[in-house]
Amino acid sequence: MAVFRLLPLGALFFSVAACAQGGAVSGGAAAPQLPPAGAQEHPGVFVTAEEVRALRDARGLYALLDATLAANVEMMEAAFAQPIETPPPGEAGGYAHERHKQNYREMKAAGLLYQITGERRYADFVRDMLMQYAAMYPDLGPHPRSEKQVPGKLFHQLLNENVWLVHTIIGYDCVYDALTPGERATIEANVFRPMISWFVNEGAYSFNRIHNHGTWTVASVGMAGYVLGDDDLVEMALHGTDKSGEGGFMRQLDELFSPDGYYMEGPYYARYAIWPFFYFAEAIERNEPEREIYAHRDGILEKALYATVQTAWPDGTLPALNDGSLYMDVAAPGVVLGTDLVYDRYAGDPALLGVARFQGSVILNGSGLAVARDYHAADAVPEMTWSSVEFRDGADGERGGLGILRAGTGEDQTVALMKYGVHGLGHGHFDKLSLILWDQGRDVLDDYGFARFVNVEPKYGGRYLPENDTWAKQTLAHNTVVVDGQSQNGGDREVADAMHGTRHFFDGDGSDGVQSASATASGYYEGVDMQRTVLLVEDEAFEHPILIDLFRLAAESEHQYDYPLHYDGVPIASSFELAAHTDALQPMGTSAGYQHVWETGRASTTADVQFTWLDGHRYYSVTTAGNGPTEILMGRTGANDPHFNLTREPLLVLRRRAADHLFASVIEPHGYFSGATESSVQARSRIASVHVLGSDETASVVEIEDVDGDRWHVYVNNGAPSGDTHSATFGGQTYTWTGNAAVRPLR
Amino acid sequence: MAVFRLLPLGALFFSVAACAQGGAVSGGAAAPQLPPAGAQEHPGVFVTAEEVRALRDARGLYALLDATLAANVEMMEAAFAQPIETPPPGEAGGYAHERHKQNYREMKAAGLLYQITGERRYADFVRDMLMQYAAMYPDLGPHPRSEKQVPGKLFHQLLNENVWLVHTIIGYDCVYDALTPGERATIEANVFRPMISWFVNEGAYSFNRIHNHGTWTVASVGMAGYVLGDDDLVEMALHGTDKSGEGGFMRQLDELFSPDGYYMEGPYYARYAIWPFFYFAEAIERNEPEREIYAHRDGILEKALYATVQTAWPDGTLPALNDGSLYMDVAAPGVVLGTDLVYDRYAGDPALLGVARFQGSVILNGSGLAVARDYHAADAVPEMTWSSVEFRDGADGERGGLGILRAGTGEDQTVALMKYGVHGLGHGHFDKLSLILWDQGRDVLDDYGFARFVNVEPKYGGRYLPENDTWAKQTLAHNTVVVDGQSQNGGDREVADAMHGTRHFFDGDGSDGVQSASATASGYYEGVDMQRTVLLVEDEAFEHPILIDLFRLAAESEHQYDYPLHYDGVPIASSFELAAHTDALQPMGTSAGYQHVWETGRASTTADVQFTWLDGHRYYSVTTAGNGPTEILMGRTGANDPHFNLTREPLLVLRRRAADHLFASVIEPHGYFSGATESSVQARSRIASVHVLGSDETASVVEIEDVDGDRWHVYVNNGAPSGDTHSATFGGQTYTWTGNAAVRPLR
Repeated sequence: MAVFRLLPLGALFFSVAACAQGGAVSGGAAAPQLPPAGAQEHPGVFVTAEEVRALRDARGLYALLDATLAANVEMMEAAFAQPIETPPPGEAGGYAHERHKQNYREMKAAGLLYQITGERRYADFVRDMLMQYAAMYPDLGPHPRSEKQVPGKLFHQLLNENVWLVHTIIGYDCVYDALTPGERATIEANVFRPMISWFVNEGAYSFNRIHNHGTWTVASVGMAGYVLGDDDLVEMALHGTDKSGEGGFMRQLDELFSPDGYYMEGPYYARYAIWPFFYFAEAIERNEPEREIYAHRDGILEKALYATVQTAWPDGTLPALNDGSLYMDVAAPGVVLGTDLVYDRYAGDPALLGVARFQGSVILNGSGLAVARDYHAADAVPEMTWSSVEFRDGADGERGGLGILRAGTGEDQTVALMKYGVHGLGHGHFDKLSLILWDQGRDVLDDYGFARFVNVEPKYGGRYLPENDTWAKQTLAHNTVVVDGQSQNGGDREVADAMHGTRHFFDGDGSDGVQSASATASGYYEGVDMQRTVLLVEDEAFEHPILIDLFRLAAESEHQYDYPLHYDGVPIASSFELAAHTDALQPMGTSAGYQHVWETGRASTTADVQFTWLDGHRYYSVTTAGNGPTEILMGRTGANDPHFNLTREPLLVLRRRAADHLFASVIEPHGYFSGATESSVQARSRIASVHVLGSDETASVVEIEDVDGDRWHVYVNNGAPSGDTHSATFGGQTYTWTGNAAVRPLR
Repeated sequence: MAVFRLLPLGALFFSVAACAQGGAVSGGAAAPQLPPAGAQEHPGVFVTAEEVRALRDARGLYALLDATLAANVEMMEAAFAQPIETPPPGEAGGYAHERHKQNYREMKAAGLLYQITGERRYADFVRDMLMQYAAMYPDLGPHPRSEKQVPGKLFHQLLNENVWLVHTIIGYDCVYDALTPGERATIEANVFRPMISWFVNEGAYSFNRIHNHGTWTVASVGMAGYVLGDDDLVEMALHGTDKSGEGGFMRQLDELFSPDGYYMEGPYYARYAIWPFFYFAEAIERNEPEREIYAHRDGILEKALYATVQTAWPDGTLPALNDGSLYMDVAAPGVVLGTDLVYDRYAGDPALLGVARFQGSVILNGSGLAVARDYHAADAVPEMTWSSVEFRDGADGERGGLGILRAGTGEDQTVALMKYGVHGLGHGHFDKLSLILWDQGRDVLDDYGFARFVNVEPKYGGRYLPENDTWAKQTLAHNTVVVDGQSQNGGDREVADAMHGTRHFFDGDGSDGVQSASATASGYYEGVDMQRTVLLVEDEAFEHPILIDLFRLAAESEHQYDYPLHYDGVPIASSFELAAHTDALQPMGTSAGYQHVWETGRASTTADVQFTWLDGHRYYSVTTAGNGPTEILMGRTGANDPHFNLTREPLLVLRRRAADHLFASVIEPHGYFSGATESSVQARSRIASVHVLGSDETASVVEIEDVDGDRWHVYVNNGAPSGDTHSATFGGQTYTWTGNAAVRPLR
């Protein structure tokens, strides 16, 4: 078979865990049964001899540790069964590229297993592979396939080579004392030194850049500095090549996260961005504890980890914000690393043991040992349940944010997420005030995420597909209002980068059954101000939490407002005549994403719009106040997609023409359906009507009535946020309530 | 809330288990601690006092039994919390309809729990509910909402009322001795007697019909006969209202199953059809063991159960053949009943314990106890793994059949199913020689099943949707060739009912890595003979079993042959230019199902056609021999579907014009994809080409080449089946092989 060597799948999942040292190490006093791993300096960048002894003694005691060790051993057995290969550089996603990536995973695992087991073959493996690299690396020029960026030599982009060095240097550190001085000299002179020189000189732009790729660059050089005993490299890594502090790790820590630890590109990127932060921070803590790196910026590393895991959906998947994947989860290696280090270096939060449960593995140092041990000792199996939470965006925390409302526990949570921070640079989408609803273990109102099949070679080499720009980034691809058929900021990233949403209020307490988040966005469409307020409401009249969504638009002149809902599943019922186009389909428009949507049906009504669909075992209904003529467009993605790059997803668009308008909707999960038992309960919505009593810059008041005639009033303060009593007068009636948002039953 | 009383979901799953007696009862000698349940006659139709004592003693010992008891208790606690309701008859799927269904489930459960626990409240519940029925039933006329059939009185169709009586009479039997003679007289005179009279007289057509509805009718009357001590009713149930044997249970046993136990309407209907067969058979065995009902027709009841569970996919779901659902599985109540009775009344096959594991419940009599006990005692957790199997169709076994090839174990099996039996009456589809491929826990090449949302009231009252006729039944909706754009038999059911496919050969042994099934169908299209041979091949060159599909058409004149593949997932790569229609979609045709398919793309080639898609964690490629000009049509269902009744599914159609033609294809699962780890391995097919060396009425010989240049020859004997040596000469070359089908590597 000419296909490349199949990597064991377990290894792909577990190849993350590495060799390192935590703060609290148990069992350190046990008598060493194997030769000590060397002088006190090696290993020292991620694990120490003392931790190694503790890990050795802990074998067989803790499931998480044993699973991790087994996965690493399995990967190495597969590696031993094949000759060592260091092929000439090749294209991204190709064999050579993947081989060099797997090589660094294996060198790290082998170094670690050498330390823990004392088996010489692991050290020999690292030595032999590095000697093979030493024989080829000096002759390599810049990688020929780089495009518009400084390349590496093994890889087409510098980033991959930085990542290679971070992991390889850990493996090297672990086997350092098993090598002869001559071998060390050869490897350092022919691999590490020229590679570092390339990073520091030709790679200076990345090195000094305040960007997550730059973090990998400085982490690799800084960690190598510790291992090679070169303080100058560490100093550059911390403060930039010129040591001025304009670049380097410390400034990245200060600027790449908001004060709440939120990473502006979104959780999919955060899971990768935090990885080198934790690797290098841990190396610093071990070698220069006096820097108190974990305390820096009020514990920003702890916050960054929480801001990553707390954005996760109840099943551990990370929201597909910006150019994000629908499938990435908190078992990603950078998150495993961060979870274990934060657990051990900070407060030992039991909630993180719930994250570890999901991850199913630990890092192989003292911190990982602490997690494995405490997880084992926990009285109950920890659950990963987070409360409602808001994260401020921007380095100063003044550039909007991300609001997440949650009701329920475990995977049974209902979650509403609204996005109102910064654009997110090159990976940003034009989706300010967009909403995602998670319920029943799935994204019921979803975000398309990126248009990309990462590492799937036949799909455009695994790169971003053209439809990522023309569909996934466009406003219509999100659950937020599209004005005049155009994307926000006219789809111009530079304009978008200069703006941000504004936090209005956030109440995630929920003790009264009502949680709310409100934000505004101005300037995204010329002359149109937008405010969205979502309320997650638990009321005994409804089997599940319902979502009340008030999207307010204010303008001087009339505009076309499109309110899209990206549902999934099967249309079941509607208040309007649900008549699909039967004999021909046309795209919904010509630009701004509309060209990618087949218009599958169209209707209009002046009454409330109610639409029910079936998704999984539950029905969902949206009921939107009528209050004038609404056009209803049904659609499905796939138009102008010559290579079938887009998945085919349905959407519903409610279209209004108005200057000021409030889209007032209730989204209700209801009933139960099972195909296996052929049971269907309550397939119709309990909402009878949604009526806007009034809405302006001071307040919005909405009345909801259910099929029993029970009514509720919904009050939202649109003025300056305050928890005080507010009042508003609409149609001669004055309404008074307390707090920024309230729901009051009239029964 | 005005919505109807919510039924506990657990109850919907577990409400099946009933009160009854098995053959082998353990612990019968234990001292009774509760008053004996009555004289030896009651209970006697499904469970005896002796079994009741054994069940009582077994509480807390066996998980399956405890789970079943807990589910029944839970259902009854919910029932006790509400007033008893026997509402006036209402429409199908409506509140009254569902209430009367739930009532019989509760009466059966209550009767049983009265026996097992001795708690009087259970008996009182059955008494009170039946007295309430006694007060209303005599005044009821025929149900007003029947359409084109004899109605019941509580329900719009007789069937539901038969089912009501079967379950209710079991509950009544259980509480018989707890009622006063007066109460019994009232209930029998006002409910059971008039109901039976209605069934025997107005319902005589159903009673005497050789049809699964008729089985419910006779079972209900026969079981009531035993409980009421009325031999005449039993005699009628067994031999028809005139006792001639032209109708009745015995003739149903003889004619409704093939000699292999296969039920002609397919597994979805079998799971329901066997239910009353087992209820009544068990009642007969208990009351008149001298009839040896379980031995009748060489153990046809045992075969019927196996033919149901052995058609299941590895995850327990039943294939959606004919008007079948995609979601029904072997946990259906009739299958639980049959599994436990067959386990206990026949050979105690441990494989059935694997079925019980999937079911998670047992019936509450001695047979269920035997299963729960043996499941508990089993050394290893039993797995439900079936081997390849062929079922003959038709009462005489001479009307084609169903072939199922399997490779692998557990849920990891790869399964290919081909359908070549009878049409299947009113629920039949025009899909002779259709193929379904199951792999990786899903239907990779699927059957649409029915177009219906059972019990989903807003979807046409839960009835069959119009698109069931216009799409789901049509040939194009299946993985079988469509000739000249028309469905088989011109879509005429009466014509179809008169024909059947023909078994050619079946080899499910697989010890040489090759399993095969071959069948023919003639007369389905005038002047066109069809033969399909599928080979499931395990070869070390391929990571997973591959499917070789040879669909041979023979005609005097040229026809249009459409070979559809109903894949699912995302197109990844193709040998032809995969160019979608970008700016407008039209239906693929005007009739025979084509009107329901949007043509999403079209291409043509004279070379091999290769198409790769991603489904779940695996890639799939079909490679079809070129051998002349092929048109490729891409499609998606949804055209001419004004009410969004059809789900949107993609399909690929390969179109040829020819007189004789062989569609020779290899379908290869390959590689691995994970969105969570962003891994992609071997996204491209290993098949380089498929070449037809020759094909005629004697044989087909095909050469397959992989990307390494390795080649295989595939030989199929199209003449009279035999395991002997065959030879065929094509293009001057003579090929010789042994057996009906062979695959020979040329390396």
